[in-house]
Amino acid sequence: MNRFRVSVHIVPRKGLLDPQGKAVSDALHALGFADVEDTRIGRYIVLDVRAESAAAAEISAQAMCDKLLANPVTEDYQIASTVTV
Amino acid sequence: MNRFRVSVHIVPRKGLLDPQGKAVSDALHALGFADVEDTRIGRYIVLDVRAESAAAAEISAQAMCDKLLANPVTEDYQIASTVTV
Repeated sequence: MNRFRVSVHIVPRKGLLDPQGKAVSDALHALGFADVEDTRIGRYIVLDVRAESAAAAEISAQAMCDKLLANPVTEDYQIASTVTV
Repeated sequence: MNRFRVSVHIVPRKGLLDPQGKAVSDALHALGFADVEDTRIGRYIVLDVRAESAAAAEISAQAMCDKLLANPVTEDYQIASTVTV
Protein backbone atom coordinates (compact mmCIF):
# COMPACT_ATOMS: atom_id res chain seq x y z
CA MET A 1 0.00 0.00 0.00
CA ASN A 2 1.28 3.44 -0.87
CA ARG A 3 0.44 6.69 0.79
CA PHE A 4 -1.24 9.45 -1.21
CA ARG A 5 -2.09 13.01 -0.33
CA VAL A 6 -5.44 13.89 -1.89
CA SER A 7 -6.49 17.55 -1.79
CA VAL A 8 -10.16 18.38 -2.13
CA HIS A 9 -11.94 21.69 -2.75
CA ILE A 10 -15.44 22.01 -1.35
CA VAL A 11 -17.29 25.13 -2.44
CA PRO A 12 -20.83 26.51 -2.07
CA ARG A 13 -22.84 25.43 -5.10
CA LYS A 14 -22.89 28.01 -7.88
CA GLY A 15 -25.96 30.20 -7.65
CA LEU A 16 -26.46 29.64 -3.94
CA LEU A 17 -25.95 32.55 -1.59
CA ASP A 18 -22.56 32.51 0.15
CA PRO A 19 -23.07 34.74 3.21
CA GLN A 20 -19.53 34.15 4.48
CA GLY A 21 -18.11 35.24 1.12
CA LYS A 22 -20.36 38.31 1.11
CA ALA A 23 -19.16 39.26 4.60
CA VAL A 24 -15.52 38.88 3.55
CA SER A 25 -16.11 40.97 0.39
CA ASP A 26 -17.62 43.73 2.51
CA ALA A 27 -14.74 43.58 5.00
CA LEU A 28 -12.20 43.76 2.16
CA HIS A 29 -13.97 46.81 0.71
CA ALA A 30 -13.91 48.45 4.15
CA LEU A 31 -10.15 47.80 4.32
CA GLY A 32 -9.66 49.59 1.01
CA PHE A 33 -9.58 46.67 -1.41
CA ALA A 34 -12.12 48.27 -3.74
CA ASP A 35 -11.16 46.06 -6.71
CA VAL A 36 -12.60 42.89 -5.18
CA GLU A 37 -15.79 42.03 -7.05
CA ASP A 38 -16.73 38.72 -5.51
CA THR A 39 -15.50 36.30 -2.88
CA ARG A 40 -16.46 32.68 -2.41
CA ILE A 41 -15.35 30.78 0.66
CA GLY A 42 -14.98 27.05 0.61
CA ARG A 43 -12.98 24.38 2.40
CA TYR A 44 -9.66 22.90 1.45
CA ILE A 45 -9.26 19.40 2.84
CA VAL A 46 -6.00 17.47 2.63
CA LEU A 47 -6.38 13.73 3.18
CA ASP A 48 -3.44 11.37 3.68
CA VAL A 49 -4.75 8.00 2.54
CA ARG A 50 -3.18 4.56 2.19
CA ALA A 51 -4.22 3.01 -1.13
CA GLU A 52 -3.01 0.70 -3.88
CA SER A 53 -2.95 3.45 -6.49
CA ALA A 54 -3.64 7.14 -6.98
CA ALA A 55 -6.93 6.26 -8.69
CA ALA A 56 -8.00 4.14 -5.69
CA ALA A 57 -7.10 6.99 -3.33
CA GLU A 58 -9.25 9.40 -5.36
CA ILE A 59 -12.20 7.02 -5.41
CA SER A 60 -11.88 6.69 -1.65
CA ALA A 61 -11.72 10.50 -1.23
CA GLN A 62 -14.85 10.89 -3.38
CA ALA A 63 -16.69 8.42 -1.16
CA MET A 64 -15.60 10.43 1.90
CA CYS A 65 -16.94 13.63 0.32
CA ASP A 66 -20.25 11.96 -0.52
CA LYS A 67 -20.68 10.47 2.95
CA LEU A 68 -19.25 13.11 5.27
CA LEU A 69 -17.16 15.98 3.97
CA ALA A 70 -19.48 17.80 1.58
CA ASN A 71 -23.12 18.75 1.99
CA PRO A 72 -24.76 17.21 -1.10
CA VAL A 73 -27.54 19.81 -1.13
CA THR A 74 -25.49 23.00 -0.95
CA GLU A 75 -21.91 22.18 -1.88
CA ASP A 76 -19.85 20.91 -4.79
CA TYR A 77 -16.54 19.17 -4.39
CA GLN A 78 -13.63 18.56 -6.67
CA ILE A 79 -10.37 16.62 -6.28
CA ALA A 80 -7.70 19.30 -6.67
CA SER A 81 -4.58 17.13 -6.68
CA THR A 82 -3.27 13.70 -5.74
CA VAL A 83 0.41 13.18 -4.97
CA THR A 84 2.47 10.38 -3.46
CA VAL A 85 3.90 11.09 -0.02
CA MET B 1 -8.54 46.64 -16.06
CA ASN B 2 -9.01 42.93 -16.45
CA ARG B 3 -10.78 40.57 -14.13
CA PHE B 4 -8.85 37.74 -12.52
CA ARG B 5 -9.96 34.84 -10.37
CA VAL B 6 -7.33 34.22 -7.70
CA SER B 7 -7.69 31.05 -5.61
CA VAL B 8 -6.00 30.90 -2.24
CA HIS B 9 -5.38 27.98 0.13
CA ILE B 10 -5.19 28.82 3.81
CA VAL B 11 -4.06 25.95 6.01
CA PRO B 12 -3.17 25.47 9.67
CA ARG B 13 0.57 25.97 10.06
CA LYS B 14 2.54 22.72 9.90
CA GLY B 15 3.22 21.37 13.37
CA LEU B 16 0.25 23.13 14.95
CA LEU B 17 -2.61 21.03 16.22
CA ASP B 18 -5.58 20.92 13.82
CA PRO B 19 -8.52 19.88 16.04
CA GLN B 20 -11.02 20.11 13.18
CA GLY B 21 -8.86 17.79 11.08
CA LYS B 22 -8.52 15.37 14.00
CA ALA B 23 -12.30 15.31 14.46
CA VAL B 24 -12.85 14.62 10.75
CA SER B 25 -10.22 11.84 10.79
CA ASP B 26 -11.99 10.20 13.73
CA ALA B 27 -15.38 10.54 12.02
CA LEU B 28 -13.98 9.00 8.82
CA HIS B 29 -12.57 6.06 10.80
CA ALA B 30 -15.95 5.59 12.47
CA LEU B 31 -17.57 5.49 9.02
CA GLY B 32 -15.21 2.69 7.95
CA PHE B 33 -12.52 4.70 6.12
CA ALA B 34 -9.70 2.97 8.03
CA ASP B 35 -7.06 3.93 5.46
CA VAL B 36 -7.17 7.64 6.30
CA GLU B 37 -3.97 8.49 8.18
CA ASP B 38 -4.29 12.23 8.56
CA THR B 39 -6.66 15.06 7.66
CA ARG B 40 -5.94 18.78 7.57
CA ILE B 41 -8.75 21.25 7.11
CA GLY B 42 -8.12 24.64 5.63
CA ARG B 43 -10.02 27.26 3.69
CA TYR B 44 -10.29 27.69 -0.04
CA ILE B 45 -10.99 31.30 -0.97
CA VAL B 46 -11.80 32.38 -4.50
CA LEU B 47 -11.38 36.11 -5.11
CA ASP B 48 -12.60 37.87 -8.25
CA VAL B 49 -10.36 40.92 -8.54
CA ARG B 50 -10.04 43.71 -11.10
CA ALA B 51 -6.36 44.34 -11.82
CA GLU B 52 -3.99 45.42 -14.57
CA SER B 53 -2.25 42.05 -14.73
CA ALA B 54 -2.26 38.60 -13.17
CA ALA B 55 0.82 39.56 -11.14
CA ALA B 56 -0.95 42.66 -9.77
CA ALA B 57 -3.98 40.54 -8.86
CA GLU B 58 -1.76 38.10 -6.94
CA ILE B 59 0.01 40.89 -5.07
CA SER B 60 -3.38 42.28 -4.12
CA ALA B 61 -4.57 38.83 -2.96
CA GLN B 62 -1.43 38.44 -0.83
CA ALA B 63 -2.11 41.78 0.83
CA MET B 64 -5.70 40.63 1.58
CA CYS B 65 -4.37 37.44 3.17
CA ASP B 66 -1.88 39.40 5.28
CA LYS B 67 -4.47 41.91 6.44
CA LEU B 68 -7.65 39.89 6.81
CA LEU B 69 -7.97 36.41 5.39
CA ALA B 70 -5.23 34.44 7.14
CA ASN B 71 -4.24 34.41 10.78
CA PRO B 72 -0.51 35.22 10.66
CA VAL B 73 0.16 33.34 13.91
CA THR B 74 -1.50 30.01 13.14
CA GLU B 75 -2.01 29.79 9.39
CA ASP B 76 -0.06 29.68 6.16
CA TYR B 77 -1.48 30.76 2.83
CA GLN B 78 -0.58 30.04 -0.74
CA ILE B 79 -1.91 31.31 -4.07
CA ALA B 80 -3.24 28.16 -5.73
CA SER B 81 -4.10 29.58 -9.16
CA THR B 82 -4.81 32.78 -11.04
CA VAL B 83 -6.95 32.76 -14.18
CA THR B 84 -8.60 35.42 -16.32
CA VAL B 85 -12.39 35.54 -16.14
